[in-house]
Amino acid sequence: MFGVPGDFNLWFLERAAPVGQVEFVGCCNELNAACAADGYARLNGIAALATTYGVGELAALSGVAGAYAERVPVVCITGAPPLSAMKNGALLHHSLADGNFDNMLACYKEFTVAQTRIEPKTAALEIDRVLRACWLEKRPVYIQLPSDLIACEIADIEAPLELDLPADSAAHLARAIASIAARLARAERPAFLLDADADRFGLTDLIIRLAEANDIPIVSLAPARGHVPDAHPLSLGTYRGAASIPTVKEAVETSDCLLCIGARLTDLSTGLFTQNFDKAFIVDVQPTMVMVGDVSYDRVSSRALLMGLLEAAPRRRQSAPHLRSIAAPARPPQASGSLTQATFWSFIQGLLQPGDVLLADAGTSLFGAAALTLPRDTTFISQPIWGSIGYTLPAVLGSCLAAPDRRHLLFIGDGAFQMTAQELSTILRLDLKPIIFLVNNDGYTIERLIAGPESAYNDIQPWRYSQMPAVFAPAKPALVRVAKTQEQLADAVAAAAGANSATFIEVLLPRMDAPGDLAKFARRAAEFDFPQIFNAA
Amino acid sequence: MFGVPGDFNLWFLERAAPVGQVEFVGCCNELNAACAADGYARLNGIAALATTYGVGELAALSGVAGAYAERVPVVCITGAPPLSAMKNGALLHHSLADGNFDNMLACYKEFTVAQTRIEPKTAALEIDRVLRACWLEKRPVYIQLPSDLIACEIADIEAPLELDLPADSAAHLARAIASIAARLARAERPAFLLDADADRFGLTDLIIRLAEANDIPIVSLAPARGHVPDAHPLSLGTYRGAASIPTVKEAVETSDCLLCIGARLTDLSTGLFTQNFDKAFIVDVQPTMVMVGDVSYDRVSSRALLMGLLEAAPRRRQSAPHLRSIAAPARPPQASGSLTQATFWSFIQGLLQPGDVLLADAGTSLFGAAALTLPRDTTFISQPIWGSIGYTLPAVLGSCLAAPDRRHLLFIGDGAFQMTAQELSTILRLDLKPIIFLVNNDGYTIERLIAGPESAYNDIQPWRYSQMPAVFAPAKPALVRVAKTQEQLADAVAAAAGANSATFIEVLLPRMDAPGDLAKFARRAAEFDFPQIFNAA
Repeated sequence: MFGVPGDFNLWFLERAAPVGQVEFVGCCNELNAACAADGYARLNGIAALATTYGVGELAALSGVAGAYAERVPVVCITGAPPLSAMKNGALLHHSLADGNFDNMLACYKEFTVAQTRIEPKTAALEIDRVLRACWLEKRPVYIQLPSDLIACEIADIEAPLELDLPADSAAHLARAIASIAARLARAERPAFLLDADADRFGLTDLIIRLAEANDIPIVSLAPARGHVPDAHPLSLGTYRGAASIPTVKEAVETSDCLLCIGARLTDLSTGLFTQNFDKAFIVDVQPTMVMVGDVSYDRVSSRALLMGLLEAAPRRRQSAPHLRSIAAPARPPQASGSLTQATFWSFIQGLLQPGDVLLADAGTSLFGAAALTLPRDTTFISQPIWGSIGYTLPAVLGSCLAAPDRRHLLFIGDGAFQMTAQELSTILRLDLKPIIFLVNNDGYTIERLIAGPESAYNDIQPWRYSQMPAVFAPAKPALVRVAKTQEQLADAVAAAAGANSATFIEVLLPRMDAPGDLAKFARRAAEFDFPQIFNAA
Repeated sequence: MFGVPGDFNLWFLERAAPVGQVEFVGCCNELNAACAADGYARLNGIAALATTYGVGELAALSGVAGAYAERVPVVCITGAPPLSAMKNGALLHHSLADGNFDNMLACYKEFTVAQTRIEPKTAALEIDRVLRACWLEKRPVYIQLPSDLIACEIADIEAPLELDLPADSAAHLARAIASIAARLARAERPAFLLDADADRFGLTDLIIRLAEANDIPIVSLAPARGHVPDAHPLSLGTYRGAASIPTVKEAVETSDCLLCIGARLTDLSTGLFTQNFDKAFIVDVQPTMVMVGDVSYDRVSSRALLMGLLEAAPRRRQSAPHLRSIAAPARPPQASGSLTQATFWSFIQGLLQPGDVLLADAGTSLFGAAALTLPRDTTFISQPIWGSIGYTLPAVLGSCLAAPDRRHLLFIGDGAFQMTAQELSTILRLDLKPIIFLVNNDGYTIERLIAGPESAYNDIQPWRYSQMPAVFAPAKPALVRVAKTQEQLADAVAAAAGANSATFIEVLLPRMDAPGDLAKFARRAAEFDFPQIFNAA
């Protein structure tokens, strides 16, 4: 449970801490706490966020919305004023002092799948209801806990929390399986198109088994990056519309049975809506329903459906051999030379190990890291939909706590780092040991590529980043390096391997340098956002 | 205009900057930008906030809600996705990727007095409508500006923006004035009770004239701190319910004609609802209506009402001489000795000069600063209603820009500073010169006084605060001192007087030390929030 104390939640924290099953991690502010909870839940399945009423919960809201967009289950618990004071419309601090106590809940309603204000009579039922929604829908929920109810006792709950999905319709399930199996049987070019749902609902292994049994290639959308191992022979890579590599583009766009798992065809997932495939060939698998072409089957859970297909689908061999699409392993970095986006990511490629957790912030970091070939058992954490810069620094606090025995590599730009910088303090306070690459390219590079390359609004104040670990945690060890050349980068990384502490490497990269095809993407984004300006040119 | 660039607002910033009348100040994150805009508007009447859709505007929301609660006009301008993409429900980054583009506006609706999504046909009217609401209601408004409309031209607007309040009802105004004048004529103990509205609607001078003409004492509520000069012979001090000093308590609670200006009897303004006065004696002056006892008069603007009273009310002398209530000037600090809350604030009292701008963050800083006697023309900035810790650091960025020739003194605790610390970077980048007192008492002291004095959740990571100016702005000069004794504090302040730069003084105070009656207030807050726990004891 991540959060910040405030007067309305103090006794909740006082009571929650000794329970022993929940550890409270105090963060520097609430937005950071929300991102940390998200990072934790990505690896361990669920997390909680504790804030105080009004000031705290609103400050966290953008982080909670991010968890909604990226489908991450976070239980948001706000310590609210006493129930009687709210019911009386008392003019309280942390409110608008107008007697309205419904506005916070109204906001959270937009970004959570279930909400409740706890009252004594219904507390047991309501808490279970929202926890269940959080778990089943893999999205945030909101619990408003009036401060005077902390001491309120409720009867023991005897039944365990019901965490199964509602029962499927056996008839719908059977018909859906038969329909899809028939499509698969006659398809010449079936393919999987995976989105984040596959991971969030724990379906990835099942999908791989189904793909192996039927020799179906697997393509991922950006939010599913890293869920299927890059080294798997059936894994073709990431679909990005017109910007896809040819093998991936062909596999998806010529497929006559495209098995989509929770696919959301967002701007970033489609190279700005340049996808090109026929809806008639799509099987759209959602958590509790499936659409086969234009026929929908509700009350069909994705797991049962995939299990059924595994049994029902005829073993088949695809006619055309699959071309492996993964980029060739990067060349080993040269011993010397200045760093560029290209040489930096090439070096990082050589650094990756099985089991790593990679976090890439929006901007050049995400575009660079997304093009890496990931070793097996790598976890890749980013926000390809919500895209809130600064998310990953607090997220790595969460991910390190969730999987302390894994190596966590964070890539974050200077503009993003400035958003949430103070959470480095908590990372060091808790003796966590991520390797943080601060990709310093002197301002908002991704925005310079879209508009205003020389405009002052894309400039930021240059910080002495390398001194921040010592400032935030004077008593804690941290390995800190600045790398302007490949040699310095290699030295820094070699030192990190031996360090029993967090590592903070400031990497100096050219201001307008962009990894991969980011420049092309940025140009398209400019045309999309400001058509009169950039299409006219 | 304070804010953060993002792809959907880039061309708006590109076009807005050269206009010449608007300066864009890039902040480290959006919450900070919102607080900076609030701080600017407190001194210069209005400010703007520029964010990008979703991620940015939600991150700013708590700061905007604060401006609403404290009645500060801020024009929130969000760069949104292209209008056609929103209308088509496109699955875009910075949204929930579900086609819903109404959720951000729904949230802002809770914390702004007018909202609009710009469309070409109605742009001119709509922009004027929301700007007018912002100015007249002195509260935030929200403009959602689709990115593709930046290049959209609209016809020249010939009529100036109408900024007058709707016309008063002459009949209501005359009756209200007559009724209040009659009450004043027969009252033996009239008094003014001022809230923030008096300042926000520019009524303070008028109220002072009316008070002087009729010898009416003036009492302020916490949000009106500093609006009437403490040295004014009719100024009695701050009402805080049962915690008021006797003169103030008597003036308010025995008044037979209590002229309330926008009074909101919040928990903090009333010593936790310990006010004790008879509603029958209240004249409740609101911006466009007034209640006299239980008779309400609508379409009566507060300015016209007060002007009318100035003409109509009979000159009178109050029977009892007023006892001056302001605390005696503090003793000059002793030359040596360790610092405590008492000696620190006593020293600050001696430091104050006419024209100073004081900013006090929630917690010990606000309780300490609120008890100071303010020289003439002092401005006091705080959030006595919203109470969001960390608000004042970005707010001093705004206040310094609004009044660069005045001296700005900021008092902020260590826990609060950690919330928004990065905005020190922008303060230094812009060569602003506040004197910042970082009141370091090792954690959330005000919360320790409420609950969990030794609990880990009230601890924070100790930073090496004194190095932060050099880390955030290596190329900028700043005077930095650490003061553990009165001598060190005096030395630091003496040096600040000669420094042509920002000053950052870390003041080390005992962990559980509390200024004034904060400990008593905290105890009452604990009883209010957690009655079963603290009343049972």
